[in-house]
Amino acid sequence: MALSVREQIADNSRIDILSAAARCFMDRGYAAASIDEVARSLGATKGRIYHHFPSKADLFAAVFRHGMDLNYEAVRPFIDLPGSALPRWRRMAMSHVLLMIDTKPFQRAVWIGVEMHLRGATTPEQRSVFNELIEYRHNYGMLFRNTLLQGREEGVFRFDDLSITNQLMFMTLNSPIFWYTPRVGETRSDVEGVAKKVVEYALGGLSKRREEGV
Amino acid sequence: MALSVREQIADNSRIDILSAAARCFMDRGYAAASIDEVARSLGATKGRIYHHFPSKADLFAAVFRHGMDLNYEAVRPFIDLPGSALPRWRRMAMSHVLLMIDTKPFQRAVWIGVEMHLRGATTPEQRSVFNELIEYRHNYGMLFRNTLLQGREEGVFRFDDLSITNQLMFMTLNSPIFWYTPRVGETRSDVEGVAKKVVEYALGGLSKRREEGV
Repeated sequence: MALSVREQIADNSRIDILSAAARCFMDRGYAAASIDEVARSLGATKGRIYHHFPSKADLFAAVFRHGMDLNYEAVRPFIDLPGSALPRWRRMAMSHVLLMIDTKPFQRAVWIGVEMHLRGATTPEQRSVFNELIEYRHNYGMLFRNTLLQGREEGVFRFDDLSITNQLMFMTLNSPIFWYTPRVGETRSDVEGVAKKVVEYALGGLSKRREEGV
Repeated sequence: MALSVREQIADNSRIDILSAAARCFMDRGYAAASIDEVARSLGATKGRIYHHFPSKADLFAAVFRHGMDLNYEAVRPFIDLPGSALPRWRRMAMSHVLLMIDTKPFQRAVWIGVEMHLRGATTPEQRSVFNELIEYRHNYGMLFRNTLLQGREEGVFRFDDLSITNQLMFMTLNSPIFWYTPRVGETRSDVEGVAKKVVEYALGGLSKRREEGV
């Protein structure tokens, strides 16, 4: 159902805030980021932010959730593609990597959340929200699971430990959030070229090497 | 030349402080870590820490530098091994991954430093120290460069962009600092098994896949 004009304005405003907040979390880290600064970067009042998000923790959770929503959206069209695993894996992986590049501030915020969770840096009140977010992210990772297993069955992937392999694959596919920066005059096809290198590297890790023979 | 007993005690004390500090930076992040807490975790006075490190920034720089010193030490014995690239690369990579696992708090502190540098979160006074540390880390990465190029020349590695490939390779080799946790009853050979999976994944990314033919 289409949103009313009023709902649409409210929605745009929410997305603007999330985007500004994602950039702020990426640039300053969780502790140093503030609603004040997010408001300033939007030329908005603090009240406008608080209207949507009662606290920095709420704002951060919404950024994390939106980053993961984008991931699900990017990959969902491909997860049920029929046929052999390799072409499906390629499309899922390519879509994931392009999203890492295109929504880097959101994905870095997700990463900040994972690190806070890893070191137990969340307050008791945050913990249940964080557990839910981390689980949401974990379930996203599981979307690749069936394709990995099918690929192994079909003999194009070789791995024994699914969980370690999944970690290694995602570290590779996520890594542009740390090292990618747009070059001057870069075209969309340049970006796709970078994403393709990432996908091929990750695929190599999953595959039998030529030297290993059949 | 051997250290005198007095020098050796001073040196052990320095290493103890660095180890406690690395763990503190890993567990709390840079902003929340404090010399107070490092002292407490050692059952030492703040004075003992300040005797070695005049500020938190100095302590952090020393932890980062020590982490990188360990990297250089681990890989140096292999970089000039004669012969073909692949066995040399394997030994360098294995040594690197085992070190990531064995000295995780130091390596996480290095990562914290890289992230602070990425987001420009350093003060003007810290900047020159940080630039030097980041360069020290960059040069470490370059130790793999010749072996990668030689491997490509020998036809066992396939890649076109050395810089992206180096990033992807290191993201894979470094990743245990994020996901590795010792399992109950784990032996040294279990740890080596985990490290081997990481090395083989990274190698797969560098190599021609079986499907690609000769």
